[in-house]
Amino acid sequence: MKKIIKPRKGLKAGASPGTLVHVGEVRQSATTLTVAEYGNEKIETRRLDPENLKLRVAPEPVVTWVDVEGISDLPLMEKIGAGFGFHPLVLEDIVNTDQRPKSEDYETYLFMVVKMFTPSNEGTLSEQISLLLGSNWLVTFQEGLDGDPFAQVRDRLKNPDGRLRTRGADYLCYALIDAVVDNYFLVLEDIANRIEDLEEELMNMPTPETLARLYRLKREVLLLHRSIWPLREVVSALIRRESPLVKETTVTYLRDLYDHTIQVIETTETLRDMLSGMLDIYLSSVSNRMNAIMKVLTIIATIFMPLTFIAGLYGMNFKHMPELEYPLGYPIVLVLMAGVTIGMLIFFRKKRWL
Amino acid sequence: MKKIIKPRKGLKAGASPGTLVHVGEVRQSATTLTVAEYGNEKIETRRLDPENLKLRVAPEPVVTWVDVEGISDLPLMEKIGAGFGFHPLVLEDIVNTDQRPKSEDYETYLFMVVKMFTPSNEGTLSEQISLLLGSNWLVTFQEGLDGDPFAQVRDRLKNPDGRLRTRGADYLCYALIDAVVDNYFLVLEDIANRIEDLEEELMNMPTPETLARLYRLKREVLLLHRSIWPLREVVSALIRRESPLVKETTVTYLRDLYDHTIQVIETTETLRDMLSGMLDIYLSSVSNRMNAIMKVLTIIATIFMPLTFIAGLYGMNFKHMPELEYPLGYPIVLVLMAGVTIGMLIFFRKKRWL
Amino acid sequence: MKKIIKPRKGLKAGASPGTLVHVGEVRQSATTLTVAEYGNEKIETRRLDPENLKLRVAPEPVVTWVDVEGISDLPLMEKIGAGFGFHPLVLEDIVNTDQRPKSEDYETYLFMVVKMFTPSNEGTLSEQISLLLGSNWLVTFQEGLDGDPFAQVRDRLKNPDGRLRTRGADYLCYALIDAVVDNYFLVLEDIANRIEDLEEELMNMPTPETLARLYRLKREVLLLHRSIWPLREVVSALIRRESPLVKETTVTYLRDLYDHTIQVIETTETLRDMLSGMLDIYLSSVSNRMNAIMKVLTIIATIFMPLTFIAGLYGMNFKHMPELEYPLGYPIVLVLMAGVTIGMLIFFRKKRWL
Amino acid sequence: MKKIIKPRKGLKAGASPGTLVHVGEVRQSATTLTVAEYGNEKIETRRLDPENLKLRVAPEPVVTWVDVEGISDLPLMEKIGAGFGFHPLVLEDIVNTDQRPKSEDYETYLFMVVKMFTPSNEGTLSEQISLLLGSNWLVTFQEGLDGDPFAQVRDRLKNPDGRLRTRGADYLCYALIDAVVDNYFLVLEDIANRIEDLEEELMNMPTPETLARLYRLKREVLLLHRSIWPLREVVSALIRRESPLVKETTVTYLRDLYDHTIQVIETTETLRDMLSGMLDIYLSSVSNRMNAIMKVLTIIATIFMPLTFIAGLYGMNFKHMPELEYPLGYPIVLVLMAGVTIGMLIFFRKKRWL
Amino acid sequence: MKKIIKPRKGLKAGASPGTLVHVGEVRQSATTLTVAEYGNEKIETRRLDPENLKLRVAPEPVVTWVDVEGISDLPLMEKIGAGFGFHPLVLEDIVNTDQRPKSEDYETYLFMVVKMFTPSNEGTLSEQISLLLGSNWLVTFQEGLDGDPFAQVRDRLKNPDGRLRTRGADYLCYALIDAVVDNYFLVLEDIANRIEDLEEELMNMPTPETLARLYRLKREVLLLHRSIWPLREVVSALIRRESPLVKETTVTYLRDLYDHTIQVIETTETLRDMLSGMLDIYLSSVSNRMNAIMKVLTIIATIFMPLTFIAGLYGMNFKHMPELEYPLGYPIVLVLMAGVTIGMLIFFRKKRWL
Repeated sequence: MKKIIKPRKGLKAGASPGTLVHVGEVRQSATTLTVAEYGNEKIETRRLDPENLKLRVAPEPVVTWVDVEGISDLPLMEKIGAGFGFHPLVLEDIVNTDQRPKSEDYETYLFMVVKMFTPSNEGTLSEQISLLLGSNWLVTFQEGLDGDPFAQVRDRLKNPDGRLRTRGADYLCYALIDAVVDNYFLVLEDIANRIEDLEEELMNMPTPETLARLYRLKREVLLLHRSIWPLREVVSALIRRESPLVKETTVTYLRDLYDHTIQVIETTETLRDMLSGMLDIYLSSVSNRMNAIMKVLTIIATIFMPLTFIAGLYGMNFKHMPELEYPLGYPIVLVLMAGVTIGMLIFFRKKRWL
Repeated sequence: MKKIIKPRKGLKAGASPGTLVHVGEVRQSATTLTVAEYGNEKIETRRLDPENLKLRVAPEPVVTWVDVEGISDLPLMEKIGAGFGFHPLVLEDIVNTDQRPKSEDYETYLFMVVKMFTPSNEGTLSEQISLLLGSNWLVTFQEGLDGDPFAQVRDRLKNPDGRLRTRGADYLCYALIDAVVDNYFLVLEDIANRIEDLEEELMNMPTPETLARLYRLKREVLLLHRSIWPLREVVSALIRRESPLVKETTVTYLRDLYDHTIQVIETTETLRDMLSGMLDIYLSSVSNRMNAIMKVLTIIATIFMPLTFIAGLYGMNFKHMPELEYPLGYPIVLVLMAGVTIGMLIFFRKKRWL
Repeated sequence: MKKIIKPRKGLKAGASPGTLVHVGEVRQSATTLTVAEYGNEKIETRRLDPENLKLRVAPEPVVTWVDVEGISDLPLMEKIGAGFGFHPLVLEDIVNTDQRPKSEDYETYLFMVVKMFTPSNEGTLSEQISLLLGSNWLVTFQEGLDGDPFAQVRDRLKNPDGRLRTRGADYLCYALIDAVVDNYFLVLEDIANRIEDLEEELMNMPTPETLARLYRLKREVLLLHRSIWPLREVVSALIRRESPLVKETTVTYLRDLYDHTIQVIETTETLRDMLSGMLDIYLSSVSNRMNAIMKVLTIIATIFMPLTFIAGLYGMNFKHMPELEYPLGYPIVLVLMAGVTIGMLIFFRKKRWL
Repeated sequence: MKKIIKPRKGLKAGASPGTLVHVGEVRQSATTLTVAEYGNEKIETRRLDPENLKLRVAPEPVVTWVDVEGISDLPLMEKIGAGFGFHPLVLEDIVNTDQRPKSEDYETYLFMVVKMFTPSNEGTLSEQISLLLGSNWLVTFQEGLDGDPFAQVRDRLKNPDGRLRTRGADYLCYALIDAVVDNYFLVLEDIANRIEDLEEELMNMPTPETLARLYRLKREVLLLHRSIWPLREVVSALIRRESPLVKETTVTYLRDLYDHTIQVIETTETLRDMLSGMLDIYLSSVSNRMNAIMKVLTIIATIFMPLTFIAGLYGMNFKHMPELEYPLGYPIVLVLMAGVTIGMLIFFRKKRWL
Repeated sequence: MKKIIKPRKGLKAGASPGTLVHVGEVRQSATTLTVAEYGNEKIETRRLDPENLKLRVAPEPVVTWVDVEGISDLPLMEKIGAGFGFHPLVLEDIVNTDQRPKSEDYETYLFMVVKMFTPSNEGTLSEQISLLLGSNWLVTFQEGLDGDPFAQVRDRLKNPDGRLRTRGADYLCYALIDAVVDNYFLVLEDIANRIEDLEEELMNMPTPETLARLYRLKREVLLLHRSIWPLREVVSALIRRESPLVKETTVTYLRDLYDHTIQVIETTETLRDMLSGMLDIYLSSVSNRMNAIMKVLTIIATIFMPLTFIAGLYGMNFKHMPELEYPLGYPIVLVLMAGVTIGMLIFFRKKRWL
């Protein structure tokens, strides 16, 4: 989440559409393919050798799930695309990790792009996940970060009594997107915690470093919002069931997912509003400290300038200065000085500066 | 209303949808169930033993209202859900108190979530209330804060001539949501009073503490707005009567409720705008005080610096300084100093600093 | 327009809907009812004794207009409501003067609430006016402020050739709302004049009091906008003629009224934008004066500090300070001081501080 | 464009709708009427004597264009209105120059109001132009400023081969509105030039006068936007061709006009955004100069305060101050002072204040 | 991108619509016309002599692409327009380079205007590109900047197996607009890089020059957004396929193009938000430095003012000042001074100013 726009290495404007250009960091050098075939009764998982790629979709009601990890091996990606008969633009979008979330209907399959976020020490990491949903198959593409975002779904698949096993590929697709959205809450919690830390710091002892962190947090929330916002449209398109690939029974679950998505978006907006408010607080806090500094300066100057003047007055070397001769001249001046000081202090007390 | 996002203890991203996870503080350890059966002629209220749960809905026109207080006992919740045949996602939403207000149509029943707010010394307390409306039954779930938000509705139910007794479950449902919305006015009044106190403080004697309270109030209004805004959609969905569960005769009342909801939302927005305006006032007030401080400093420095210089001038130890020898040197210098002082005061008066 | 939210005295959240609770100040202790019956040929006006209330609507084409002034006498209001067969929610809204403008269709009659504003010395006064339009009758409710907002319409009714006499109750209803909207222009003019005064003050000699007045004006415009904005929906609903109570011939007039309403709303928004701009001007004006103050301080300090140092230098009591012995030492130092001063003045002139 | 709201002289709230009240400055005392009748073959222009008003519309395909300049002579306006059979509300709108742009369909004619703007030395002047489009006639009303906005269209009418002569009244109407919109570009260019001047001033040497001009410009753009924005709706209504008075062949031209209108609106919004940005620049520029002033003060004070203290130290009159006796005391102190000064300068250099 | 509004040289408001007026800089004196005719099997490219213009469109399935570079030669443009039978308004729009992106349906052809942007040393350069799409022909107009935006598409056309050769004119049109949108990413990357440079500068060492660059960047993004935003509508109109000129097979590609357009718009908005945030950072950074300056001043003044006063006190010339006689008077005063200094330093340490 460092870069605003990922460098489009090697991209030449005007290249033929459908030309595969990998955009983004290479997250995993080798590409691994995992195939899971499951139905009511059994589940079979195997790894595919990328060099010897043979893909076969079992007949309904068996569901075939192909999970591809690592998308930077372009020739292999092209082979996979050709094997499944994906549109060239689909493949172009899969390998371009700067895609915004979207869903597209290619009649025999639905193509969806979503973003996975993981809080980490170097800020929030983002991973692009593409899903292609067919009648009884699902192909997913991950960039291949450490940690498998689908691990829990994989575990639930192993449970023979789980809902996943009795439902079709559309429910699996829903379950995976749901896992992604559930993850957003972790990211938001992480950000909310950092905001609360910042808030305390702001109220007690803000430094320019606080400001820099506030700014970085604000920018992170901005980019997060930009990535999550289009997800709403993706889920909403699934609910409208413009494609027969999404079954009626899954819609209830999708509506629940839609609610979660809205909640994520609203929370992001609330966080953004809070960060804006905090900048105002920072600015007024800076002004306040300035006021405090100026008060100290003014009090010191206002007390000592008259005193120094009086001392200077009787430091003059005129021949004829009768006061200098008075035996009580010095004590009287000291009393006068004390009087001036007390008067000033009373003045400041009245102005509530002390 | 302290936390922006409630900690999702135990929540694992990717858990099977419908898995019950209680999110939020445990407000009431024991769960109590109250059943009220009423019709035109009589009303019968009894408590259900949560350990020995038997639920029976009387035939129409009798209306059965089950009120569940305390939602953190997950096994019991599951038992209730199974007893009534609620969808697992409904139960998941009921026990997750970080839900946003929403309404969902499950054909044989409507599921609604609303938020109750209560002003308290530690800020505004929020409580999630879920309502499930069937043909002639209503099940409500409360988190179980001190004080029963439905107490007045319960009293009105006891009145045999009241409108509540002659109408169906949808009217009861309306009456309960109406009670919740009526409560919002109390919260808004409380906030409006605090805003007016702050305003007076701002105009007279703002301190950094004023700012902190302003900020907290702003944040409270922000979260309040976020919770109330979706309620509009809930009521509006009821009015559109997409479900046959809402009767024609109730719609007039729902429109009235809708008006109240709009009024609550607009008032919240007005409060938010006023708080924004107050921050500007605070900032200018801080600037003004800075100006006042700087004026004092400048006046003092501008008067005493020339005087001190003159005193210093005649404090020099040159052998040949003819003025020092004049018998009238000292008085002349004193007059000169008075002249400088008076000149400066006239200058400040002209600049309207005095 | 002082209070953001009017205190809901006696209001208990959860009270039965339709329960009459007067919200707002009591503007008129006694309630007066005026009935006007008019047609093409004659007009008859009489007062009704509130204690002996008998209401009879003459057959078409005669139009009956009942004007009720003073709404705080709840038992009487209930009697009136029952006499005309108004819905309890309608009466509840009439006596709650914190209502937002709205229109509701009760099939046999339309219920509308609008807000009347009057500029006064204590700020803008607001009065709620409710209108109930039937087939050939109109009932209006006023809070009963000094001054009759309908006086001109009453006068025009007396003119036998006026358009009012030949048209139905819907035209009378339009004429009354039109009178209310015309009044808004007076209020906006009043505010615009106050803004122009403030503007001049801002440019010439802003004080903290200017800021306070700016803030109060901004808040007044905010509350005004909130009250006028929903009126657009009210008029627009009448134009759409969802109810047969509004005749085709009146629609041209309603469109004109709609234009006026839009103009009022846009003017309010322009005023609000101008007030926001003025706050920015105030802030920069404060900064500018700060700059001016700092310049004075800096000029004084920069000139006198070196001079005072030089004087102090030759005020030292070292035994061996050859300059002190020079006969021309003193004049040379004076010339040096003049040089420093002139140099500083040139420096400030170059910086354009002088 | 001085006044936010034009004084509604003589306007009494509640006056009968359709009552003529002239709102605005009287721009031309005498009203002049010019009639042009033209067809494919010939064009005939004549002046009408306002005192002896006879209006006759030639049969199709001849087009009759009546141009009325000066709208403050209300009795004459009423005569014109009666002669053409205009609705009273139309006349009321024509003489009220505070109208917002709008179009209204009166079945046998369309009524449109647009605003003409002319840059002038006293700011932008605005003139209201009303157009009434019939089947083969057009009546236009101008306030009567110096300069005829329609001069060019009149010239083009004289060209026997021009498109204007072969098309109907709707094309003439389009041509006139197009001339008005073309004029907007001149006004926007004028404002853009003034903004660019201001920008340069801002970057180089902003004064409080810059701010005042910025504010006046911002307000002018605000009022301009408010006047131009509704024009979009006017043109868009013509394109939708809800009235048969607009012919199919004219729609292409109207779409072009619509594009220009959108461009004008967007440019106005861009100008507004730029002016907002400039205020921020002004504020930071003021802060920057404040910083520069403070630096000068701080440098001077930080250098001379220690020096003055050292001088004061050796100006003390203690009997026993061994340093005073040293023959090298004075030179050593001078060297010390030079050291302090150099140290301070190095400190400021390191802080990059010098 | 320097000028907000391009000067409309020679434009007279009210000129006949369709009058050709070149608006903008003359980018290329001579106009060149390139014709490419291609089909499945062969491609033929030739230059047309502008003086001897003969245009012939080959029958389907051959596609004819005429590319016109340089649009300031108005008589030639008129000849081209007449040759192809373009509407006069189309030609007017082509030569007016201040056009906003739009698409218009002229039944036998579609007219589109888009904007090309190129990052350069003098800021972003903009070039207007007009496209006219017929059944099997495409005419494009470029202003004629250095560098051919269509070079890559031309290269792809030469490839006999490329998709371009087998598809119609609508696909060519898509490919050209796609090349334009691809170019936007380069411009956005350029701006994003400049923003990142600015950010670093802001955090480390902001100067008024930083602010000026920030402002210029903000304005550039503002104008960019204004130019790109309407492109969305252009592409969306093509996708809705209101015209039969766009074939079903091209729609998938257009949807991809639409996604890219949305991404460009969102990135522009993100950049704008970031620039707004940076201004806030700049302002707080200026305030922070002011605070730092004031602290230095206050520390110096607070330490040396009391010391100077003490020194001045014992520089007084009273006859009777017993302290002056004490042999230890001087050392005691020195110790006192050290004490005052240490006290002040402790005070500042406690206030965390040191």
